[in-house]
Amino acid sequence: MTYCLAIHANDGLVLCSDSRTNAGFDNISVYSKMHRFVWPGNRFLTIMSSGNLATTQAVISKIRQDLNQHALINLLTVSSLHEAADYVASTSTEVQKIQAARDTKSISFEATFIIAGQIGTQPMETLLIYPQGNFIYESEVYPFLQIGEIKYGKPILDRVAKRDISLEAAARCALVSMNSTIRSNLTVGPPVELLIYKKDALEMSTYMLLTDKDDFAKKLSESWDSGLKQALESLPRFSWEVAK
Amino acid sequence: MTYCLAIHANDGLVLCSDSRTNAGFDNISVYSKMHRFVWPGNRFLTIMSSGNLATTQAVISKIRQDLNQHALINLLTVSSLHEAADYVASTSTEVQKIQAARDTKSISFEATFIIAGQIGTQPMETLLIYPQGNFIYESEVYPFLQIGEIKYGKPILDRVAKRDISLEAAARCALVSMNSTIRSNLTVGPPVELLIYKKDALEMSTYMLLTDKDDFAKKLSESWDSGLKQALESLPRFSWEVAK
Repeated sequence: MTYCLAIHANDGLVLCSDSRTNAGFDNISVYSKMHRFVWPGNRFLTIMSSGNLATTQAVISKIRQDLNQHALINLLTVSSLHEAADYVASTSTEVQKIQAARDTKSISFEATFIIAGQIGTQPMETLLIYPQGNFIYESEVYPFLQIGEIKYGKPILDRVAKRDISLEAAARCALVSMNSTIRSNLTVGPPVELLIYKKDALEMSTYMLLTDKDDFAKKLSESWDSGLKQALESLPRFSWEVAK
Repeated sequence: MTYCLAIHANDGLVLCSDSRTNAGFDNISVYSKMHRFVWPGNRFLTIMSSGNLATTQAVISKIRQDLNQHALINLLTVSSLHEAADYVASTSTEVQKIQAARDTKSISFEATFIIAGQIGTQPMETLLIYPQGNFIYESEVYPFLQIGEIKYGKPILDRVAKRDISLEAAARCALVSMNSTIRSNLTVGPPVELLIYKKDALEMSTYMLLTDKDDFAKKLSESWDSGLKQALESLPRFSWEVAK
């Protein structure tokens, strides 16, 4: 499986992805799921992917090919994030159709994507593209999108990921959401990619690749662990404990 | 859906369940999923259920009928928790077979159970019974079992639910695990049932039914919320923040 998330704050975007892939339990590997397409001063786009690895690789590879061959529609010619999402969606469904036509065993070739970024002077946008090719924006109240193993890391996002969160706080929130998921699910694993995009920068602001041996990642994990234990320790006592 | 969990600590058992049931989105109701069978001084047993409501009701009802009719095998005649699990498992698969035989639409009649308790001088035990009728004990390192919507509330259990946890700390941990699940998933809802069983008591030690208007539940939820935010606030800063 996979876990990728995007937080869309007022000040910018925070994107985070794991990099474990598995086909069964004995075929585990490491692949980046965060694909960056940046033309400084013009547009910043990032696509994160989850699902069948052959499908997601074929989709990204087709997107790069379209750029190289100056196809009529490509990530550099689309005039909005919405158009970009539409282009990725149709590329994804085309790829899935080709895979399915070859298949003799009815395997799932589905893939899900998050596309996030900014084009010129337009507002930043984040969209989630379903395997079926339709796509949605994030909610105004819960301004984040997740794909893959989304449940373990959702409670903390539900609580703190709001529009007015600072980019650094959002990045820490994304990392603990990822950390909890990695701890609880074997199919999500390091290294973790973290990308911070500052509004209107039109280039990548910060990018970190955190392995499990990374000092900052270790400190963050330990601090979160002790913070959670302290939060648990501070919870109100039951009546019979107080009476003691 | 449902969320039920059991923590098996050295000092006793902590059981917690939600009570929302839904058949589709417009047919939501409240049912207890925690079924207690207590013969003080002799044995204490609790069965928690998840899955098809008709199946779980039929299983519990058959278990009560067997007790009333003094069937050869019933919860009072079984000589161990293992035997009790075996009896619940075969009751469950029998019920599922009957339902499936009547079905014309291939609906899922599956149900999953947790059985926990103590019989006489034997050790306390907790088991999870799969829809297929096989069952497992909890792990020694992660001494808890969960059924239903298990992912949202698993990270906190993974971190703190250990054998040597106090019963009160385990109960608080169970309640925040439940609280996070209720916040993040519409199909899990209050009131929440919490049961604490002290080792060798052979009767119910503490039982609480917490509605969303309950003062203690509210305080706990607020305290957990602010504790999490504080934990997030205490996380190490990124290098560029420190440099500022």
